[in-house]
Amino acid sequence: MKILIAPDSFKESLTALEVANAIEEGFVRIYPEAEYIKIPMADGGEGTVQSLIDATQGELIEVKVTAPLGNKVNSFFGLSSDHKTAFIEMSAASGLHLVPTTQRNPLKTTSFGTGELIKAALDYGIEKIILGIGGSATNDGGVGMLQALGAKFLNTLCQDIGFGGECLAEIVDIDLSRLDPRLKNIQFEVACDVNNPLCGENGASAIFSPQKGATPEMVKQLDFALNHFANIVQQQLQLDIKHKKGAGAAGGMGGGLLLLPNVNLKAGVDIVIEATSLASYVEQADLVITGEGRMDAQSIYGKTPIGVAKIAKQFNKPVIAIVGCLSEDYEVVYQYGIDSVFPIIHRLGTLEEVLQQGKLNLISTAQNVARLYKFSY
Amino acid sequence: MKILIAPDSFKESLTALEVANAIEEGFVRIYPEAEYIKIPMADGGEGTVQSLIDATQGELIEVKVTAPLGNKVNSFFGLSSDHKTAFIEMSAASGLHLVPTTQRNPLKTTSFGTGELIKAALDYGIEKIILGIGGSATNDGGVGMLQALGAKFLNTLCQDIGFGGECLAEIVDIDLSRLDPRLKNIQFEVACDVNNPLCGENGASAIFSPQKGATPEMVKQLDFALNHFANIVQQQLQLDIKHKKGAGAAGGMGGGLLLLPNVNLKAGVDIVIEATSLASYVEQADLVITGEGRMDAQSIYGKTPIGVAKIAKQFNKPVIAIVGCLSEDYEVVYQYGIDSVFPIIHRLGTLEEVLQQGKLNLISTAQNVARLYKFSY
Repeated sequence: MKILIAPDSFKESLTALEVANAIEEGFVRIYPEAEYIKIPMADGGEGTVQSLIDATQGELIEVKVTAPLGNKVNSFFGLSSDHKTAFIEMSAASGLHLVPTTQRNPLKTTSFGTGELIKAALDYGIEKIILGIGGSATNDGGVGMLQALGAKFLNTLCQDIGFGGECLAEIVDIDLSRLDPRLKNIQFEVACDVNNPLCGENGASAIFSPQKGATPEMVKQLDFALNHFANIVQQQLQLDIKHKKGAGAAGGMGGGLLLLPNVNLKAGVDIVIEATSLASYVEQADLVITGEGRMDAQSIYGKTPIGVAKIAKQFNKPVIAIVGCLSEDYEVVYQYGIDSVFPIIHRLGTLEEVLQQGKLNLISTAQNVARLYKFSY
Repeated sequence: MKILIAPDSFKESLTALEVANAIEEGFVRIYPEAEYIKIPMADGGEGTVQSLIDATQGELIEVKVTAPLGNKVNSFFGLSSDHKTAFIEMSAASGLHLVPTTQRNPLKTTSFGTGELIKAALDYGIEKIILGIGGSATNDGGVGMLQALGAKFLNTLCQDIGFGGECLAEIVDIDLSRLDPRLKNIQFEVACDVNNPLCGENGASAIFSPQKGATPEMVKQLDFALNHFANIVQQQLQLDIKHKKGAGAAGGMGGGLLLLPNVNLKAGVDIVIEATSLASYVEQADLVITGEGRMDAQSIYGKTPIGVAKIAKQFNKPVIAIVGCLSEDYEVVYQYGIDSVFPIIHRLGTLEEVLQQGKLNLISTAQNVARLYKFSY
């Protein structure tokens, strides 16, 4: 029997590889002879780089970059073992967690550090970049990122504009001629799970900037600035980023990325599924096990287990999800290919205790799932 | 397919019948055509009367009896639908919960009320009594119960001794001639899950009376009194209750009951298994589902799921346990016939919240178990 184990991480508790190992440990007690294929998965959010490194036996590269407020910070990206693909999380350089709560201000925060990560990856001679853009502290339309890669955004004095969302309102000229030339040969896959446009009532500023520290006044100012930026792009580059679905992701990063060559915005889980060749493993498997830290009705919108289940159902394979916890409304997942779901909590305790017991509870739950599954094999 | 559902109650949350109904509700969603047999189970402890009433479509009879400290209290017993068997819990008349914490004193508390329950049951023309003796507030060797049934325990002045464990030391004469004559025709099954003798360092007083309010001084006095009682029984009735296994249960109730005709002390779960004819249902079933509120390593000592599993394994049937919570050391249950265990907690919350979600979580867990089991059917 071949068992494919393809879970997401359990946030704050276990990486996707650790989850896969624990599930295997529980199953192996009941099926010691089975063949186990473990593919750590992700959905483009936090943990995606780690999962892709683990899935490709790649490595983690540490880099010092510019944090959202301009200070330097230790960051990282991932590299596949063949050095052809880099895995980057925007939040590792430009994440909200890098800005102290009292200093959160998207008028000031820049995505420059994410551009530095991309530049550092290019130095390895890669052919492809997978970029997850969740969790950012910025609302600068990706302009900081583009600046780090050599793009020029000039004000009326022909000087570079500064960092932060507010400076976009000063742009009068965009010069992409000095963009890093290596980008031309790069295939750029951007994991983007929202459809928001760049501007307006559903745009980046209105929907996402308040959680990054924007007041209602700032929201207006930021939306105006992004709108101005998009107008200049349209005029000078004949590129419509204002109405493009997903352009509003990550404070307009989705839009800014469209100024680079060969960029595709896709659902994060689909990028990971492709990068890990998941379908080829699913095809060989008798049983597919997936999981995530918390399953709820929202899980059907681009979360890992549903992505995995979709592939599994193309090959008509049974799919079991083992999850950290389960909310009341989860049952809709049955309509998306999940056959059966098991939460791992064994008894009440504090969140800390339950996170600590995570690995043991996961092994135990996997064992019981295997014991029940055994009635069929 | 025939599915037997035979769980214990989930203490503080759901009766055994409610647990069985919820499990059925989850399974029915996946196996609407299956035949369900629901047998509410118990282990002789709290909830046993309710489960046996539910299992036999019997009725609950309310009676006013004497509480442990002599006041009157509303109590109850159960009657099978054929009126042949009465189900009695000692704790309903003589339970620790009936005595305010500050007044707990086994020198004074009497089991008289339990005798009154038995007497009330005899009025229905029954042939058999199933008596659970857990949770008592007393250490009177069952003398109060015997007094209620007509037995005489006389002091040096040829007067009846009073209530409570301390009065046993005054006994000089025992007269059973006026015991209720109907007892001769009664088969008496006593659910008793401890092996403690009446007296000594493992006796009723030493082991159980402290939790009923006894000080170390009282423990000595109570042990002396029980020992004196056993000596008089030996001399006048030629009956050795001092060394009998289980005589120390329920403050010596296990010993006192031996003065009645046709009394058997047995494991509670075995009595319930017999009373519900569980084996005949197991024999017809394809799958057996059991459960309890909390499963741990102690569950192998006379708890319901293990008793059910023992019968199931005689007929080689798969056994799944669905439980309220699961402690770390539970895995020993696999050696006792449980094939697979699933706790029902879906997410963290207060105890109150989790108890409130009990029924929904149980239905949901049962559904997922059924979905996984379906791979085999």
